[in-house]
Parts: sequence; structure tokens; C-alpha cells
Amino acid sequence: MSQFWSPALHELTPYVPGEQPTEQVIKLNTNENPYAPAPGVGRVLRDYAASHLRLYPDPDSVALRQALAATYGVPVSSVFAGNGSDEILAFAFQAFFRHGAPLDVPELTYSFYPVYAKLYDIELRQHPLNERWEVDLDALTKAESRSGIIFANPNAPTGHAHSLDALKALLKQVTDRVVLLDEAYVDFGAESAAALTQRYPNLLVTGTFSKSRSLAGIRLGYAIGSPELIDGLKRIKDSFNSYPVDRLAERVGIAALEDTAHFQACRESVIATRQRTQTRLESLGFTVLPSQANFLLVEHPAYDGGQLFVGLRERGILVRHFNKAGLQNFLRISIGTDDEMNSLIEVLETLCA
Amino acid sequence: MSQFWSPALHELTPYVPGEQPTEQVIKLNTNENPYAPAPGVGRVLRDYAASHLRLYPDPDSVALRQALAATYGVPVSSVFAGNGSDEILAFAFQAFFRHGAPLDVPELTYSFYPVYAKLYDIELRQHPLNERWEVDLDALTKAESRSGIIFANPNAPTGHAHSLDALKALLKQVTDRVVLLDEAYVDFGAESAAALTQRYPNLLVTGTFSKSRSLAGIRLGYAIGSPELIDGLKRIKDSFNSYPVDRLAERVGIAALEDTAHFQACRESVIATRQRTQTRLESLGFTVLPSQANFLLVEHPAYDGGQLFVGLRERGILVRHFNKAGLQNFLRISIGTDDEMNSLIEVLETLCA
Repeated sequence: MSQFWSPALHELTPYVPGEQPTEQVIKLNTNENPYAPAPGVGRVLRDYAASHLRLYPDPDSVALRQALAATYGVPVSSVFAGNGSDEILAFAFQAFFRHGAPLDVPELTYSFYPVYAKLYDIELRQHPLNERWEVDLDALTKAESRSGIIFANPNAPTGHAHSLDALKALLKQVTDRVVLLDEAYVDFGAESAAALTQRYPNLLVTGTFSKSRSLAGIRLGYAIGSPELIDGLKRIKDSFNSYPVDRLAERVGIAALEDTAHFQACRESVIATRQRTQTRLESLGFTVLPSQANFLLVEHPAYDGGQLFVGLRERGILVRHFNKAGLQNFLRISIGTDDEMNSLIEVLETLCA
Repeated sequence: MSQFWSPALHELTPYVPGEQPTEQVIKLNTNENPYAPAPGVGRVLRDYAASHLRLYPDPDSVALRQALAATYGVPVSSVFAGNGSDEILAFAFQAFFRHGAPLDVPELTYSFYPVYAKLYDIELRQHPLNERWEVDLDALTKAESRSGIIFANPNAPTGHAHSLDALKALLKQVTDRVVLLDEAYVDFGAESAAALTQRYPNLLVTGTFSKSRSLAGIRLGYAIGSPELIDGLKRIKDSFNSYPVDRLAERVGIAALEDTAHFQACRESVIATRQRTQTRLESLGFTVLPSQANFLLVEHPAYDGGQLFVGLRERGILVRHFNKAGLQNFLRISIGTDDEMNSLIEVLETLCA
């Protein structure tokens, strides 16, 4: 107990990100993209006049928001930009989910949500996944007197995504509070609900440059929603930090959005590698949850997940193991290059022999 | 009123940063440095392998914190890094100032503090400046039952800084709660209290790369304090956004810290220009508050501050005018290059003729 800390600070249980090793490993633990960002990103860095860094960025990131608006076919007033989608999620919890009623979430989803809830003193109402390991939209829809709904689509760490029709059915029922869809992984095989924000003023969709745009290192995320919701996020941002998106990040993000060919090629490669990896894991006896994301959640009926994690790690391959009830036998494996996945399979052939 | 917004969101009054004009003006409104960052910053950008941006940054910014620790002669465990000192100030309000008692602040200081207080539902107890426009350390020291103390040293927008001896006297009296010194402007003529953190475990000092390091555009700030306080900040960060400092920002910050000659030359130029500008403003009849920062707070007994602001603006010179009781006749003028200040004086000669 520190006398200097606010009492609530002692109660927090911070999020623990996957490790960022300094030694040479095959890194399949934090769902990064195995491919480099668009070549235009490198050109931005080479050509950037460093003298411009003496000036503050545009606090409203208008140029980046214009590029995002064009990408998603929505007005600029429907777009918000931030320092990774994590920052935007934190803003959204504070802006929209504090109505003195519980926030409805799946029991198994992005593990940062309970951390935000604690940070902003929001009660969670957790709904188990259904028997197919899918987010139970019926249960979320039927819950009464809530502060909002949030889940990832595709969900993490399962990889399952609901269709736009299923999401629309939920949005037709839930109109009084914000429904937040976290689309961090949407580009690897699911459909974005971004366009639905123009019909449902309570729908907020968040996205990130960290996964499909290969820019985890630059910290860029965005939200798409009605101007009413975007204004709410902006109010929090402007009460917290006027300029969370720096000058370089803004230019880098625009360069990434401009190169649609690179974007398509990368995501198609990841999807193809995911299919191949799934087939090979299944032939080793693994159960593999169907995934529309850039990772696979897998378990082996005969081998302990924790021990496989350690065995892979000793052989220079880092995957993610969650110390969480119901997940302890599972590994979450990010999709790397074909070479990286070949190495993974080779090691697993040894460990599961 | 939005039914989607948390009720508290309606109550916020966000901070309004100085404008970032897109047209060509002489920009003396947001206390940016008129000189480019260290040449090493440009080299970092030119040489950076963009492929590294596909990976998340080090969540603990160890390399940058090591460079800061070496700069300030403190251990790495005493250093925190964030997305500008504004973000760190927000973290600090949440981490340290919520003890159910008021936070003691000067009545006139950085105008973001009341915004943070509202965001985190913290009551402020505001103490008028003394008759010399200085932060009244006696009043801050004597206040009872508090959640903490915060002020900027040098203070904004006045420019006055207290000596280390005066600060030590306060720290000897106030030992139960955090004393936060915001040193955004300290490099332009005041003494940093960073080393005092090793003796006073409740002292937190914040700094920024935006002013004396010419890097407002990259968003980098830091805090120096006891490991107990640094751990508190880290707990908030890790409950909010694991990686607020991106990969490029970290490298750029290190390059700026390495070039001490550039740093010294820039701050000496700013200080020399400030002295010259003060003399010339005084010869035009302005009252100029003594400043140890990279700005001057000035008023003219015969001309209205609001009208001078408009007049300067119409002639392409942007300064800051605060619409705040007691300050309405004042202008805050950032120190630019000698050429920029010559243009300012020329225009003021016309306006005050």
C-alpha cells in the first residue's frame, strides 16, 4: 500500500501484453502481421523534413480522418483517430459505458475490456459463449438495463466472426445504448460493419493499423460512428491529451491506406497461410477453432497447452498461452510467414510425437 | 443531451489548445521551439527500416528511459515515458490525486489542470498568485487535508520559476501526498528539481520533448520520481494503453537527448531572443512579466489585449490570448527566431502608435 497512490489505484489489475522479446525468436504471440507495411511508409520516413517535428500535430488529425473516411465511404465527421485502438477503447468506456448499469460483454473476448471496466468503475455482465464458441448475440440482446455492449468481431482469442445480418438483428433490438464492435481483426476474412454506422447512431466500430496494415509499431487506431459518438470521443480526448496522434504517425497511416494492392496481397497471404496451418495442425491431432482472424486458437486432446507453450518457447517459438479458466489447454498462434509456420509445425511434430 | 453519452461526459469542458493554422503565419501561440530538432533526428527517420513498424513497441520504453536516466542522473526505475507530458499529467491525476480531498493548485497555472480534475472528479482548491505574480508556495504548503499539489515551474502563462531552495522548503513540509512539478519550460532558465526526487519520495517531476527539444510533433514526455510513483503511473498506463510511445518516437527521443550541443545552442538562442524581445516590448510601453520560459506574458496599459491579438492576427502573427478573468488584457507571446520577433515588434509599433 502506497500512501501516495489514490485508493482505487491499488484495486487495478493492469492488462499484460504479450512479451516483446529482444532475442531472435519466431514471434507468433501478439498477432502482428508478418509482412512489412506498404512501401510508401518507408518513403514517408525517408522524405520527411524533421524540422516539421518542432510543431504540434493537427489535434484533429483531419488528413488521416479524410483518408479513413474515403476508405470506409463515410463522412469525416464519422471518423475518430487515436493512439492505437486500445486508446480509443479506453476513451469509449469512459465516454459511453458509465450509466450506472452493467456493461454486457462476452465472458471470453479481448481481455483488456475488464481492465478498462475496473479503471472507470464500470460493472461488467459477462455472457458465456455459445456451444460453438461464438459470441452469444441472443444473450447480449436480451439482457436488460445496461450501459452498453462491447465485443470483438472477429472475437479474440477465438477468431469467430458474426455476419452483418446477425449484427443488424442485434442493432434493431438494442437502440438505447452504444454497441461497440471491435474490428481489430476484421480484414482477415470477416465483413466490416463500418457502413452500418450511418444507419445505427448507437453503433461504434473500432479498427487498428496494427494488424492488417502492419503498423503495430506506429500506434494508430480509429473509430467510425455517428457524429454524436465521435463528438463524445473527442470530448474525452480533449480532456486528456490534445494530440495523441503524432505528425509522423498521421503521414504513415495515410501512406498505408493509399496502397490498397499491398493491403490486399498481405491479407490474402495471411488467410492462405492460416488455411494451410489449420490443415496441418489438424493432421497433428489438434482441434482448431474456425478463425476469420490472423491467429488460430488450438488445443491438443493429448498434450497440455502449458507444456506445449514451454516446449515451443525453448525451441525459439513464442505463442500465447492464457492462464485463464477454460483456456488453459489452448494456445493462440498468430499467423506468420509460411516459413515461420513450417518451423512451428516441425517443432510441434517433435513435441506431439 | 445524448442518451448514448455517459452523464459525466456532458459535464466536461475540454482543454482548447492554441490553433494550428494551415496558412503561412508567424506562429507564436503554442510555445513551440523556433529551431529544428537535433540533426540526429533526421538521420533516425532516413535510416529507419520501415519493416520494423510491423512489430509492437517496447511497452516499457526501456531504451528511451535509459537515455533519460543518464541525462538526469537518476536510476531507470525513476523514469516514466509517455505520449507527451499531457498524457502523463492525466495519468498522474488519476493515479495520485483521488484521495477524497481537494487538490491544491495555483489559481493561474496550466489551464489543462482543471480539465483533468473534472475528468477524474477531483475537487480543486485554487490559491491566488502572490502580488509578484508568483505561485504562492506558503499558501500551498499551509493548506490542510489535501489530495496533492500541482503547479508548473516555471509557471504558465506567467513564466516565473521558484528556486530549488524554495521548492525544498515546501517538500520538507508536505510529505504525505504527491507534489507534482510540471517542468515543461524548465530548460529556458530555471533549475530542474529532477534530482530532488531521489530525496523526496512524494515528488514527481514531469518534462516534455515538445519545447526545449523541438519535438512537439512527435509526442514525447517523461516523469521522474521514486519507483513507487513510477509504478503508480505504469499501473494506469497498463490499464489504459500498453504502448503509448511508438517505435519511431522512442528512437527520435534518444537521438534528441544525445545531442547536448544542439540542445544548449537552441535554448541559449531562445533565452537571448527573449531578453532582446523583452527590452523592445518595454520600450514600446508594455509591461512584461519576468520570464524563465520560452514565452512572455505582456500587457500594454493603453491598448486592449484582445484588440492587439486581433490586430496581430490580421497581419499574420499568431499569439495567445486567454479569455479568462484577470488575463483579458494580456498576450502570451512565444519566443520565435530573431526575425520573427522583429516582425512582431514592427507590427506592434504600428498597432501601439
